[in-house]
Amino acid sequence: MVPLSERKLVEVCYTPGQYHLYKENFDIVVVIDVLRATSAITSALHHGVEKIIPVSSVEEARAYQSQGYIAAAERDGQVVEGFPFGNSPYAFMDPALKGKTVVLTTTNGTKAIQYASDRPTVVIGCLNNLDALCKWLIEQHRNTLILASGWKDKVNLEDTICGGAIADILLDSRKFRADEDSTVAAKFIYRSAKEHLWSFLRSSSHRRRLVKLNIQKDVKYCLTLNTVDTIPILENGYLVKLQPVEAE
Amino acid sequence: MVPLSERKLVEVCYTPGQYHLYKENFDIVVVIDVLRATSAITSALHHGVEKIIPVSSVEEARAYQSQGYIAAAERDGQVVEGFPFGNSPYAFMDPALKGKTVVLTTTNGTKAIQYASDRPTVVIGCLNNLDALCKWLIEQHRNTLILASGWKDKVNLEDTICGGAIADILLDSRKFRADEDSTVAAKFIYRSAKEHLWSFLRSSSHRRRLVKLNIQKDVKYCLTLNTVDTIPILENGYLVKLQPVEAE
Repeated sequence: MVPLSERKLVEVCYTPGQYHLYKENFDIVVVIDVLRATSAITSALHHGVEKIIPVSSVEEARAYQSQGYIAAAERDGQVVEGFPFGNSPYAFMDPALKGKTVVLTTTNGTKAIQYASDRPTVVIGCLNNLDALCKWLIEQHRNTLILASGWKDKVNLEDTICGGAIADILLDSRKFRADEDSTVAAKFIYRSAKEHLWSFLRSSSHRRRLVKLNIQKDVKYCLTLNTVDTIPILENGYLVKLQPVEAE
Repeated sequence: MVPLSERKLVEVCYTPGQYHLYKENFDIVVVIDVLRATSAITSALHHGVEKIIPVSSVEEARAYQSQGYIAAAERDGQVVEGFPFGNSPYAFMDPALKGKTVVLTTTNGTKAIQYASDRPTVVIGCLNNLDALCKWLIEQHRNTLILASGWKDKVNLEDTICGGAIADILLDSRKFRADEDSTVAAKFIYRSAKEHLWSFLRSSSHRRRLVKLNIQKDVKYCLTLNTVDTIPILENGYLVKLQPVEAE
């Protein structure tokens, strides 16, 4: 057990709009957008996409597209006209994308990545890579901010739950501490939810929105814990797969 | 049971900084600052203070003071120098204040009241007047936004719990519905907390801050449910006691 004074911080920020209130003193930012951007990014790199270029605006994505890049764009849960796909994790599993670079813009997630990029290290979290990510974060043992993408600067349930899960695991290691009430609350929401994640998220407005869009299959994929051990990391503007360090 | 389409909205906004994202379509705003501004305001009017003038800045409070008003000011949990008291509920029980008008500025609560004053009706909520307030809100049956004061634009646990409690009671009446995930999450945090409110709030950074300031007695007062039936309401810039309407 690490003494309290030597523990590192782990905190959860619920929305990009509050990021400026939190960001000081953090070395690592974990960006979360469970439904669906960060689940899709993780899935993509896991299934062989080599690099993802996250961009904030549809215009930027179009500019890349006109230069010959494969580009994906989602707004309000739907694929933007003129793009082959949006942020469905399944779309990124296409074998034709293996070894390729894909440009991506989404309603909330890529904006959060943009904000976070002012910190030294940015990684991507979702429920699919939860345990692998937490194991790595505990090994790093640095001040870690979990930035939930939310929904248009309001809090959303699934990102708060995922953030609460990461915080809970890091705090359980006794190598981290939390000072913020947002972190304590997220941990409690996760604990309320974890035994029945799917039914819990029926309460979620976001999920209701997505059900209307007929993407139940995506939602189920995104809400499944620990299916992959891939951790996407931002390097020079590209999201790439973090290479596992061999034990000596 | 009111059909879903005829139900009114009840939503919880966690911080004044997010108020602009929520405020449209609401007729009533309930401002909450459990530790301690809204508990103190409720206590004051309950114990005979006639009017409270909430002001955002210490300078405004000083200006009133120089005109002969009784003024109270709190910043960061402490009484501001030059003022006789801050936001301790006990200070407002002083019999010498009966029938008087008191000017009040606090770190978070009076700022939230200022923001909310652009809506038709602003009332004050806390754990002390929970049931009386909810009964009145259900009778009004109008779109109701619960604005938590938070701590310097970050979420805090005690206001989220109180907001979740109000939302839970209003939703239970089947006359209200909630669309926002912030409301669903607040409700779940309240339900996790309600059986052991005091120990739950030990997790709260805000409470830890207050313990350092030696105001355990205040904290205990503020965390006690349903001690009064007073509902403060904002009328022409003054917080006054809502007069009960006699049943016909």
